[in-house]
Amino acid sequence: MAANTFGRVFCVTTFGESHGYGVGAVVDGVPPGLSLDASDIQKDLERRRPGKSGVSSARREPDRVEIVSGVFEGRTTGTPLLLFLKNEDVRSRDYEKIKNLYRPGHADYTYDMKFGVRDWRGGGRASGRETAARVAAGAVAKTILEKEGITITAYTVEIAGVRVRTFDSGEIDHNPVFAPDGAAAEKMVSMIESARKEGDSVGGMIEVSVLGCPPGVGEPVFDKLDALFAHAIMSIGGVKSVEIGCGIGCARMRGSVYNDPFVIRGGRIGTKGNNCGGILGGISTGERILLKAAVHPTPSIARTQDTVTEEGKPVSVSIEGRHDPCIVPRVVPVAEAMVACVLADCLLLQRRIKKSGG
Amino acid sequence: MAANTFGRVFCVTTFGESHGYGVGAVVDGVPPGLSLDASDIQKDLERRRPGKSGVSSARREPDRVEIVSGVFEGRTTGTPLLLFLKNEDVRSRDYEKIKNLYRPGHADYTYDMKFGVRDWRGGGRASGRETAARVAAGAVAKTILEKEGITITAYTVEIAGVRVRTFDSGEIDHNPVFAPDGAAAEKMVSMIESARKEGDSVGGMIEVSVLGCPPGVGEPVFDKLDALFAHAIMSIGGVKSVEIGCGIGCARMRGSVYNDPFVIRGGRIGTKGNNCGGILGGISTGERILLKAAVHPTPSIARTQDTVTEEGKPVSVSIEGRHDPCIVPRVVPVAEAMVACVLADCLLLQRRIKKSGG
Amino acid sequence: MAANTFGRVFCVTTFGESHGYGVGAVVDGVPPGLSLDASDIQKDLERRRPGKSGVSSARREPDRVEIVSGVFEGRTTGTPLLLFLKNEDVRSRDYEKIKNLYRPGHADYTYDMKFGVRDWRGGGRASGRETAARVAAGAVAKTILEKEGITITAYTVEIAGVRVRTFDSGEIDHNPVFAPDGAAAEKMVSMIESARKEGDSVGGMIEVSVLGCPPGVGEPVFDKLDALFAHAIMSIGGVKSVEIGCGIGCARMRGSVYNDPFVIRGGRIGTKGNNCGGILGGISTGERILLKAAVHPTPSIARTQDTVTEEGKPVSVSIEGRHDPCIVPRVVPVAEAMVACVLADCLLLQRRIKKSGG
Amino acid sequence: MAANTFGRVFCVTTFGESHGYGVGAVVDGVPPGLSLDASDIQKDLERRRPGKSGVSSARREPDRVEIVSGVFEGRTTGTPLLLFLKNEDVRSRDYEKIKNLYRPGHADYTYDMKFGVRDWRGGGRASGRETAARVAAGAVAKTILEKEGITITAYTVEIAGVRVRTFDSGEIDHNPVFAPDGAAAEKMVSMIESARKEGDSVGGMIEVSVLGCPPGVGEPVFDKLDALFAHAIMSIGGVKSVEIGCGIGCARMRGSVYNDPFVIRGGRIGTKGNNCGGILGGISTGERILLKAAVHPTPSIARTQDTVTEEGKPVSVSIEGRHDPCIVPRVVPVAEAMVACVLADCLLLQRRIKKSGG
Repeated sequence: MAANTFGRVFCVTTFGESHGYGVGAVVDGVPPGLSLDASDIQKDLERRRPGKSGVSSARREPDRVEIVSGVFEGRTTGTPLLLFLKNEDVRSRDYEKIKNLYRPGHADYTYDMKFGVRDWRGGGRASGRETAARVAAGAVAKTILEKEGITITAYTVEIAGVRVRTFDSGEIDHNPVFAPDGAAAEKMVSMIESARKEGDSVGGMIEVSVLGCPPGVGEPVFDKLDALFAHAIMSIGGVKSVEIGCGIGCARMRGSVYNDPFVIRGGRIGTKGNNCGGILGGISTGERILLKAAVHPTPSIARTQDTVTEEGKPVSVSIEGRHDPCIVPRVVPVAEAMVACVLADCLLLQRRIKKSGG
Repeated sequence: MAANTFGRVFCVTTFGESHGYGVGAVVDGVPPGLSLDASDIQKDLERRRPGKSGVSSARREPDRVEIVSGVFEGRTTGTPLLLFLKNEDVRSRDYEKIKNLYRPGHADYTYDMKFGVRDWRGGGRASGRETAARVAAGAVAKTILEKEGITITAYTVEIAGVRVRTFDSGEIDHNPVFAPDGAAAEKMVSMIESARKEGDSVGGMIEVSVLGCPPGVGEPVFDKLDALFAHAIMSIGGVKSVEIGCGIGCARMRGSVYNDPFVIRGGRIGTKGNNCGGILGGISTGERILLKAAVHPTPSIARTQDTVTEEGKPVSVSIEGRHDPCIVPRVVPVAEAMVACVLADCLLLQRRIKKSGG
Repeated sequence: MAANTFGRVFCVTTFGESHGYGVGAVVDGVPPGLSLDASDIQKDLERRRPGKSGVSSARREPDRVEIVSGVFEGRTTGTPLLLFLKNEDVRSRDYEKIKNLYRPGHADYTYDMKFGVRDWRGGGRASGRETAARVAAGAVAKTILEKEGITITAYTVEIAGVRVRTFDSGEIDHNPVFAPDGAAAEKMVSMIESARKEGDSVGGMIEVSVLGCPPGVGEPVFDKLDALFAHAIMSIGGVKSVEIGCGIGCARMRGSVYNDPFVIRGGRIGTKGNNCGGILGGISTGERILLKAAVHPTPSIARTQDTVTEEGKPVSVSIEGRHDPCIVPRVVPVAEAMVACVLADCLLLQRRIKKSGG
Repeated sequence: MAANTFGRVFCVTTFGESHGYGVGAVVDGVPPGLSLDASDIQKDLERRRPGKSGVSSARREPDRVEIVSGVFEGRTTGTPLLLFLKNEDVRSRDYEKIKNLYRPGHADYTYDMKFGVRDWRGGGRASGRETAARVAAGAVAKTILEKEGITITAYTVEIAGVRVRTFDSGEIDHNPVFAPDGAAAEKMVSMIESARKEGDSVGGMIEVSVLGCPPGVGEPVFDKLDALFAHAIMSIGGVKSVEIGCGIGCARMRGSVYNDPFVIRGGRIGTKGNNCGGILGGISTGERILLKAAVHPTPSIARTQDTVTEEGKPVSVSIEGRHDPCIVPRVVPVAEAMVACVLADCLLLQRRIKKSGG
């Protein structure tokens, strides 16, 4: 019911606003006996953290996570974790002057329509800052998945029309856009810089790849694994499409080309080809799971835009504040976290998790 | 929790298998006092029903719905509806000979991996027949939405590479592929026929358009309206992508082009342009909501394919049975139903439904 | 959310009205591979069935259950079961003349206040007939528990002030009131007969005992095992109290008497005494779980009572229809079923169920 | 699913351990525009706070609540509240020496059986300290209910066999046991003191009374209002019984006495008598709602008790630490809070809440 909660067994509830005291998550359903430390979470938060390079917002948040509950003597106890991140670099005055108008592409207007009241400081609850809590929760999910031999890798495949041409997973963390192709990454960065100089912003596409997921994970009918992924990824601000496997490309294929024949490989059943993206009938095949998502350009731009005030008066606005001219790289760790949460939830629901601890 | 249940307040649970006694849904959370009759549901079932034309399966199911509970003297009582559809034209012998092998592109293998047992008759629970129950539940949702002035229209926009070029909503129900362009529809039908003759199948794309949704509907964070739609649409067998508004196109736009400026129109706030697809921050703007989905080609094809048996022996298979060479038109009413269920659920959760009855 | 659904993993949704087409349940979350047959369910329904003796209603329902979905070749498939019971002996004319007034002790008035409409035939959805669906679902839960060596026994301990003095479990099914003491049962039956002759009704108390539940079952905090039992038992019409272990008696004990000391017994840890009723901190101790519940006298009595009509006019009423002068024995199998549903749900959630099938 | 979450629309998730950094709750589903301040919550926390008198634990927690999120400019925004209480007076060394044994009447053994690991400091998550978070959440619920004219009053009716004889609501907050009878309260306090001197503890009974609840609140079947109350109250540590209305007394009544006749009073429909406790068929009648609960004596006693260690070695133990010799008064505000949470949830689900704000 609660819109701020995600998951059935591995259950994440986030809270907090962009310019309030902080943001965080309660993570319920974590198996007991799991070795867990703030540093396990911190490394993922670093990837999402703003202020690291010219391509992201100048807001400088240390994003230091505290594990407030649920861990005793270095191990989870099976009780809820509270993960908390204090807001440090809050500068609300940028927002004071535009608090009465509706920024185009933002949730200001729709929050007002729904709630009749909103925290206008930096987007309040609708801010991308909320996703720091998701990344923290996702890091916990990933410690569960690692024990099962499952690894999740998200990366950028396109920004401002520049697509990656090669795939080197070792490259992903070595450029500010998380692209698996260093040369493409350089071009992406320069496209972002140009857009910023023109007071504009750009969009792009990301992919998430899951290796090591055993066959048989997911549920039929409404909670198909792909449906849960679509829900999770589309719940990230900025995402406008979700594709599984060959995605939109399937529309122009014939069945004889689309179908992935079953074969025996290494003594077990697999598929030749993977147009289905590792999921059939909502349940994993054991092959690589592949998801794609399009991310729209940052709505906050310096360029002058038309809009209206709360009272319905037409005005012009140029968004100042501190914004990423491209949020695609920031979505990468968040998408990775959401996929991790979905998989941990499905595995726990299905009782496939080996006993933790020891 | 339960994977066969969808929705929080307007809550649909489906049951039944392709070749069992029947399929159906329990719909809980329907407001009391709503005038409801089997014929209100029947008209939507007719649109999904197989056996109507050369483009769909030859299975002839009357799909006569019974309202077993929850209606008294022609009105809903606020208690759960049981909607039941008997299976009539069951011919399981087509499946008998292939029951030990895994059909490519189907859920046979993954169900076996998950459950260790499966009803191999016509795909059992994984069959598209389950979606008849969704259409029935969606028809109930639509009676709620109609009272609010909300109309949902789904249609085909592409099959086998043939795209619609014009949009005439009156045309949609006048061709077997539910396309809003009669000329395109003819070409689509002929492409489907060619594929069938070659023992093959084709895919395509559909759209769902929602008019009349007030601003402020949906939830923030995890249960964003677009996230719920993505979940709902991706849970339909055959769908491999979900897009909102301009969808994947946003990846190559700049912010200055992507953003939909707020304007005053007819005395109320609206947007000029609708790249966001009627949803900002997960909440409706009051503009038209637009969703797109790609549907893969039918996996059941007469052409010989490679696969393996349950015991892991490589074999060849040609799927006989009675299948649609293109499931795109069959997905149209199901997508419409799922969007209706999501919206009814969100409206009821938000207490925006006017008192029924009278 | 849905008020007609109970359970998280073992998930029961009931539907149907007293004088409609029938009642039933969808049971989702049943492990695959479980051997299941209508006769496994039928034997529990027989115990709840009306019309068996002078102490219960003269309504004669065969209560023949159909398993409409979820079972294939005699085994569950992991997909939802639809269990359906047709209503056969419906005689609504008894209710026609009182349809405009509110029967004291019944839900007529409160349903009208909540829904603004109600099915007045035999209480509609509020009828005890709904509990037949619970018994059917509980029978499925019991087949799961039996494999784990868990047995649940419910019985009557008091009717009309007559208490059992001895406990012989073999006696329970040999008298119409399900009492473990034959002599007391005879007196109870005669008290019920006297009340009936005087146009009146009587109440009583039941107990539910669970043997074989392993230690460690249940959840802390809000979903404590005793809290789930209290919810389940109090949701049965007619129940006005739920006690765990020594129950209300604990209020006058001292801690030194109340506490059950831990001891070693048969090589494992147990407690000496069981005032806590087999549950500490919401989690099972491995000792016998004991619940008690008080059941109010049947509100439908022939004796004249004061009440008001829907329009607020004071009137007198004598309830004719066909009613049990004492519903205590009818609650016994329902309580047993609800306890079984809670335990199956907790065990499945906790992944303690051994693999079914084979 | 998540055992640390309660409620469907008004949704409370608690976290934290007795001797960790603190305890708290995320409250999701609070209507926007509600005026809310830490002091609104603080006054209820004061009632539950230990260290106030000789009858409670000597642990001195200021229990200062912080509203970390969800409130902006003094009003709720419709986004989740994080309510946090730091632990200040933590003295874990009392527990160090008994960390390897299972305290009788406590959850040490069952947590070990369930989780295989536990925070032994002061009971960890199973400590009564968790209930401070419930009281904080309940205070928020009460601000919602107050706007609807609903008031909830909990009080003690019996301790150590001493029952209240008079009812003066003004007296409740003027004695340390929250009894509505000053003379009885004095005797209760002296009984508690005697028990403490003898190294022992005592139990008792509480009641919760709800005035102003409109008719028609609650759900039928599984989520009956009384079933939700039973769940909520039984989830409080120490509670062993829950009764509604005349409760256990109904077992010995006849229907002609038990039934509450409907009458017209003050122009509206009500009942003469209230044996049903303000609830019929799981839905409120509009009369006073009355609940009763028995609370067992504190399991932590100084007197020597037999128990076993984690390794199964029989030992003797005398619990030192700082404990309440009677937890009945501490349960009073917690029960009040839980009843408030249930009612706020039911009202919000039912859309009966008047628009907040203004």
